[in-house]
Formats: sequence, C-alpha cells, structure tokens
Amino acid sequence: MARVVVDVMLKPEILDPQGRAIARKLPQMNFDGVISVRQGKRFELELAGPADEAALEKVRQIAATLLVNPVIEDFEVRVLGD
Amino acid sequence: MARVVVDVMLKPEILDPQGRAIARKLPQMNFDGVISVRQGKRFELELAGPADEAALEKVRQIAATLLVNPVIEDFEVRVLGD
Repeated sequence: MARVVVDVMLKPEILDPQGRAIARKLPQMNFDGVISVRQGKRFELELAGPADEAALEKVRQIAATLLVNPVIEDFEVRVLGD
Repeated sequence: MARVVVDVMLKPEILDPQGRAIARKLPQMNFDGVISVRQGKRFELELAGPADEAALEKVRQIAATLLVNPVIEDFEVRVLGD
C-alpha cells in the first residue's frame, strides 16, 4: 500500500484571483514579506499495490482525465514517504 | 527569495464527499487499484527573504489565520526546492 500525491496548480500565465486576494490581505494583517500567493489543489490517492512506474503512469492518466483541467492547470505526481 | 508550500487536508475523521466521488468513478473508467482519494488544497507562497525559521513561523501563522479551518483541516508547511 502506497500513498501518491497529485499537486495541481494553475499555469503561471493564468490569473489566480483567490491567491491575489489572500496576498493583498496579508499586509493589513501585519504579515509582510510575502510577494505572491497561488492557490491550487492537492489529491492524496491510496493505492492497493506499490507505487511503481506502472502505478504512477496510471495515476498520471487519472489526473489528466479526472483531476486536472489541462487548459489552465499543470500537475505533478509524487510518492508520499511515511 | 524562497517558495514555501502550505498543504491543507481535511482531518482524517472528516468525510470527503468530493474525494469519495472521484474514488467511486475510477473503476467505471477502468482505473483499478485506488483504495481512496482525498482532496485538499495547496498554497504556494513566494517570500521576499529566505525561508528561515522566523519566516516559516510567520507562514504557519498565516496558514492558521487565513488559509485553514482548524476545526476540520490539518496543514503542513514545507520549503519548495528548485
């Protein structure tokens, strides 16, 4: 049994109003030194078997099909250590 | 300049209907071997200075104040390598 993470972020050229709203709020709350905030999604998948290359390829297909909008989002798949 | 990630996930005891809907859809799409899916959020913060302990403590405060609902969510702060 392995756990795999799919990190999904908006492509750099896509505007992120939620992230910008957070970034703009920070100085008012006395949090300085944060240049930008981007908000994305994170999926944790628990696999029945090991996270070998075949399983990761399957997770990439799942991500591209179900989890990600490839027009506006990029994603990364990585194995979660314990 | 450093980039820091805040990973936000629902606490294990909180039901995740979105994740469950995805997990249930997978076998119908011929993706077997995924036991469960949990959906969370991911924030990328770009810092003006280095990601030292003081900056990370500030990011933890930002997370606890603005990014996370501590009743139902857990979070983790980590520095993003290049």
